[in-house]
Amino acid sequence: MTIAWQELVAGVKGGNLRALARMISHVENRDAGWKDAMRAIYPETGRTVVFGITGAPGAGKSTLTSKVAQGLVARGFKVGIVAVDPSSPFSGGALLGDRLRMQEIATLDGIFIRSMATRGTLGGLCQGARDIVRIMDAFGKDIVLIETVGVGQDEIEVVRAADLVLVVCVPGLGDGIQTLKAGIMEIGDLFVVNKADRDGADEVVSDIQAMLEIAKKDEEPVPPVLKTSAVTGEGIDSLINWLSERREGTESVAAESADRVREEILTLMEEELFHHIRLQWTGNGALQAAVERVIAGKRDPYSVAEEMLSTIRHVEPETVEHGKQGGTRR
Amino acid sequence: MTIAWQELVAGVKGGNLRALARMISHVENRDAGWKDAMRAIYPETGRTVVFGITGAPGAGKSTLTSKVAQGLVARGFKVGIVAVDPSSPFSGGALLGDRLRMQEIATLDGIFIRSMATRGTLGGLCQGARDIVRIMDAFGKDIVLIETVGVGQDEIEVVRAADLVLVVCVPGLGDGIQTLKAGIMEIGDLFVVNKADRDGADEVVSDIQAMLEIAKKDEEPVPPVLKTSAVTGEGIDSLINWLSERREGTESVAAESADRVREEILTLMEEELFHHIRLQWTGNGALQAAVERVIAGKRDPYSVAEEMLSTIRHVEPETVEHGKQGGTRR
Repeated sequence: MTIAWQELVAGVKGGNLRALARMISHVENRDAGWKDAMRAIYPETGRTVVFGITGAPGAGKSTLTSKVAQGLVARGFKVGIVAVDPSSPFSGGALLGDRLRMQEIATLDGIFIRSMATRGTLGGLCQGARDIVRIMDAFGKDIVLIETVGVGQDEIEVVRAADLVLVVCVPGLGDGIQTLKAGIMEIGDLFVVNKADRDGADEVVSDIQAMLEIAKKDEEPVPPVLKTSAVTGEGIDSLINWLSERREGTESVAAESADRVREEILTLMEEELFHHIRLQWTGNGALQAAVERVIAGKRDPYSVAEEMLSTIRHVEPETVEHGKQGGTRR
Repeated sequence: MTIAWQELVAGVKGGNLRALARMISHVENRDAGWKDAMRAIYPETGRTVVFGITGAPGAGKSTLTSKVAQGLVARGFKVGIVAVDPSSPFSGGALLGDRLRMQEIATLDGIFIRSMATRGTLGGLCQGARDIVRIMDAFGKDIVLIETVGVGQDEIEVVRAADLVLVVCVPGLGDGIQTLKAGIMEIGDLFVVNKADRDGADEVVSDIQAMLEIAKKDEEPVPPVLKTSAVTGEGIDSLINWLSERREGTESVAAESADRVREEILTLMEEELFHHIRLQWTGNGALQAAVERVIAGKRDPYSVAEEMLSTIRHVEPETVEHGKQGGTRR
């Protein structure tokens, strides 16, 4: 099957929802031609601001994300949602419920929702999310909300790549502040204490504030801590205000940092090399012979891998300056 | 700092605990010379049988692993434990408690426990665990128990690489059987319903049995389902019996499958290439220039990555047959 990439790209640029959904799927599957298609939309990207929304399972992230998305749409923003589903053997089932509930708003005008499986994403979760955000960007979204459960390292990396990060906490989830300890404090630009109608919300707020004060660096402002409740409606408007103000005040992914671009280039190179290696050596006699020698106990995998690698030569990189066609941003 | 690899290797082979711990750390850190050291111990490996123990958080895996390890030691086996700690920002704190509790038995004669962080394992979690198992193997362990929480995809992959897999379930953990749904049924060689003193244990057993019957392939025996309880002691002996019988009846990692060896060779090649790429291009003018052009909006990351890759050439692999030294298994 050949994919009508040109049609898809034109459809995405023209705001066609079906084209958006299909292009995302084909790029996610790394179907032949995906890279040229990404190049083709690249000049249309650079406007979307990405908010990462993360927190422990059960913190009410999906409901909050839905409410926030609806509020932003009501204020005139075009909003996309990327829901990163851990799809782990153990949590997949339970979480799927949340995802399905969230799909209700997928039909609301202006909100497009895309689920991502963490398992088997060919280009890796981070690059996969980056690609989806770009396609939504070219489609015309002003804001993309990436919702991810903060369980695995991969999921955290995805959130780290957002322009701004919301960390969602709740009272009564085990040790409260405990769940925030390792590594999350530094990446939060806003802390939300959700389900604030429950007992202990104020305590969680002051715990977070105390930790933020301790972690504070000179001159840097301490991130705000908001209380929200889907039941009473408390704080939802303030949250939406914060987000829409930040939408206006934040440089989008267009103004990417050098670190982020460098990381993406290296990741793309690695993906391509992986693909190349698997393709090159699958069904290759040399690999088969090597495997047999290891099984027979005549060689070890470490030596064999090194020897096979010695067949790859590096030529001084210098061709990058005078590139061919390739996307120039508008 | 140069590492006294020869001393470490000799120490590991000679059963020195300090050498064991230090060699694992240095290999995990990919300190210069790690590969030669792995080659040097490789001929001494191939005896250990690896049991993977997985299940949802809160299933009591750590306690069960401790009890099983003690029982196996009492029957004369030398046992090692690899505890894979998700170290996620959210669960790290809570799980650390379990880990610390388990460390109590680290002093019991014959049991060596090693924790692995899932975050930042340089060679990847799977290869990292494989290396640790091999070092424990060379040290003289008969059995290695790999305990991992079945949350992330990486953790599942680690368990999949074990010789035999125990899946631990408990009554009253949400939907019971629900937690087992996606992908775990196929990898379990034994199912353990732990905390069997709780209500609903028999129901979980029959749910699992029903699912196993449905998933059953012709001719293949259905994996057994055991009830255990650390409180009443129920089933612990049966579990230890099953494991020690399997220890005798199972071909160890020595008789590795072609698939597994092929995967390891490819993984090692990929790790080396990653390392090479990062090393090669870090501080390299070409990458820096590429990053700047992308930021300036003159190029896109997809094109740039492809062009930089075109500087790597592949030479027909043929040198593998006539390898140099390298480990031959005893």
